[in-house]
Amino acid sequence: MCQIEILAIGDELLKGMTVNSNAAEIAFALFKNGYQCYQHIALADERALIKNQFQESLRRSQIVIATGGLGPTCDDLTRGVAAEVFDSGFTFNETLAAELKQRYGNLPIHLNDQATVPTKALLLKNSLGTAPGIVFEADLGTLILLPGVPKEMRLMLHEQVIPYLKTKFPSAHPLLSRSLHFFDIGESSIDPALREFERDYPDVKFGIYPSNGLLSVYALITHPNRESEKQLDAIMKHLKQQFAHHFYSDHSEKIEVAVQELFVKKGWTLGTAESCTGGAISARLTKNPGASQYFQGGLITYSNCLKEKLLHVDKEQLLDLGAVSEQTVRSMALGAFEAIDVDFMIAISGIAGPTGGSENKPVGTVWIAIAKKDREVYCRKIQAHGNREMIIERSVNAALGALYSYAGRE
Amino acid sequence: MCQIEILAIGDELLKGMTVNSNAAEIAFALFKNGYQCYQHIALADERALIKNQFQESLRRSQIVIATGGLGPTCDDLTRGVAAEVFDSGFTFNETLAAELKQRYGNLPIHLNDQATVPTKALLLKNSLGTAPGIVFEADLGTLILLPGVPKEMRLMLHEQVIPYLKTKFPSAHPLLSRSLHFFDIGESSIDPALREFERDYPDVKFGIYPSNGLLSVYALITHPNRESEKQLDAIMKHLKQQFAHHFYSDHSEKIEVAVQELFVKKGWTLGTAESCTGGAISARLTKNPGASQYFQGGLITYSNCLKEKLLHVDKEQLLDLGAVSEQTVRSMALGAFEAIDVDFMIAISGIAGPTGGSENKPVGTVWIAIAKKDREVYCRKIQAHGNREMIIERSVNAALGALYSYAGRE
Repeated sequence: MCQIEILAIGDELLKGMTVNSNAAEIAFALFKNGYQCYQHIALADERALIKNQFQESLRRSQIVIATGGLGPTCDDLTRGVAAEVFDSGFTFNETLAAELKQRYGNLPIHLNDQATVPTKALLLKNSLGTAPGIVFEADLGTLILLPGVPKEMRLMLHEQVIPYLKTKFPSAHPLLSRSLHFFDIGESSIDPALREFERDYPDVKFGIYPSNGLLSVYALITHPNRESEKQLDAIMKHLKQQFAHHFYSDHSEKIEVAVQELFVKKGWTLGTAESCTGGAISARLTKNPGASQYFQGGLITYSNCLKEKLLHVDKEQLLDLGAVSEQTVRSMALGAFEAIDVDFMIAISGIAGPTGGSENKPVGTVWIAIAKKDREVYCRKIQAHGNREMIIERSVNAALGALYSYAGRE
Repeated sequence: MCQIEILAIGDELLKGMTVNSNAAEIAFALFKNGYQCYQHIALADERALIKNQFQESLRRSQIVIATGGLGPTCDDLTRGVAAEVFDSGFTFNETLAAELKQRYGNLPIHLNDQATVPTKALLLKNSLGTAPGIVFEADLGTLILLPGVPKEMRLMLHEQVIPYLKTKFPSAHPLLSRSLHFFDIGESSIDPALREFERDYPDVKFGIYPSNGLLSVYALITHPNRESEKQLDAIMKHLKQQFAHHFYSDHSEKIEVAVQELFVKKGWTLGTAESCTGGAISARLTKNPGASQYFQGGLITYSNCLKEKLLHVDKEQLLDLGAVSEQTVRSMALGAFEAIDVDFMIAISGIAGPTGGSENKPVGTVWIAIAKKDREVYCRKIQAHGNREMIIERSVNAALGALYSYAGRE
């Protein structure tokens, strides 16, 4: 199997101003297509460092994919350094210049720069930006340069880089893997089961990835044989049964996908009444293509005043019991049905922090109500930890887990 | 200045199942405290690879901070390998065991494992999880091991690791940096100005970081002298004036922070009426602590039916002009004032894709309305690119940019 490594070039990464999401995106595309990724490295915009890293990475890996530093601006060095490593001159590419001109009008100097490309390289078309991708193929290895702007990188990766790799470096041993995704269960509950499987199936490698109240389990065989599919399926079936009450998907770690699949299959509709999550539940649901098939809309009643006006929550009740209480989320859910005519409703109210907590209701206290028309409202409280963003994320996951569980029992 | 590098250990990173956000978080904390980060490396859960990397990184960097692989599960190897590198045995730590027992009850075997720690190491308290942080100090360098779970890592980083570094490795040359943040402007508009500054101030290094319609410019001096502050301030002042119509902040890349600061200062309130963003504008605003000071709530009218019922958008108009039109967002904004009594309203409707586009209104067509009570509604159309998630993100940024610009003129 050929070894690939991913470099990301940019001071912004090393200063922590940007998260290296490109590496994950490339790695996942490689993984799905049966390629193994050896390392991700992020390094600074410094000529000598970039050159050394290209040389070192090409010594140990057949293919190096680098992102960043291809832009037209002053801190972009990647192209020049790569040309040096591959001993290439530069030429002005008339076709590329004409194309850029067509898209951007008369070219300022820095766009003329963009059309000046290494003589020895293949170019990859960048239909979203000005910097073409650049591929060097030589005895010392293959170096693929992509822009750092995620949307440009992403499109070129899927449309050009993966097909290129499949043609030039067909993957001999595609990995075999399965995953299961659970809500509302801890790492340590599932671990003993995995340890047993590891004893019984030494070829299978497991990974457990908790993420804000959700948990993904991956099982993987790196050199599959005839029995591998059957083995993995048996393991997955067993796990799915053992933790059935927490299971939501065997194909997507996104719980909103599981919710959408269930609701579309059943022909149900959904609405929301959000307080502490401030729209985050609805935003998560609608990030998924096709959400309009079941999601109708929601009311974000951030102020108590709107809880009264739009959801008819009783003012006295709000004063007596507080906005973060079982009775309030129950009233929110029931009140929301009057504004939004749907089969199921989620209501949520909590203390996202960092302030607003008390001894009885510390920061992270969140009440969730799941309601179906003419059925009893289900309410639960969670105690989330971490900062505001994590508490909101955890609340969204808990609400969608509760919805999936409640609606799945219908 | 002492050199630090950040390692992240975990197959999930190399398979692209997890984004290495820990590296960015650690790097940013280091950067703010005057430490320079040499590299981030992500590597697989393999004993030999981890050992080699520890040794190589410690050869070139004084301090190595590694995350991941400290958990109680079968794929967690970091602790054992580090102990090998530092030639340390293990002891059962009674205090730690008692603490874990107090928090988690009677310990299953894997939690006993967690209390068995390297003899030669200092421990860092983990108040959110079971794996303590581990610090090895020796002639060959300092190795700090932190859990991979972001919330645990984050808390330990800020409360223990940074203070530890400040004591043990006081930073001699804190970097000096400034940033400016703009909306609705492209990289290539600002680049010529930066190139000029680079000529005039050779000590200053610039970075331009576009992000879905927003743009951050960083200026940095790595070895500041007496003049540095003045230089950076002059450059920033100049840039701020030159691009005044696009400027929103000199201290936060989050445009929602600029909106909140403006609204709180002026004592204004805000509401939303969202269609294509499905709650993402409100979720973004309320992710910021203190949003309840000005944000009242919103209506997510995802279906046309709810646009009619909750926002009183005319049915005929919806049929004739479509939900994605200037007239519709105008009506949404005006209709929303009846439900939500606020000073300013944002309304948005567009085609997030991947389906639903047409020749006249391709995927990515988004209409935004900004309204103030008793003032003319401002409407604009944007054409966003990329996948659904990017179109939504871009729409949120454009809407907040439009709001900031419109309200800032008051």
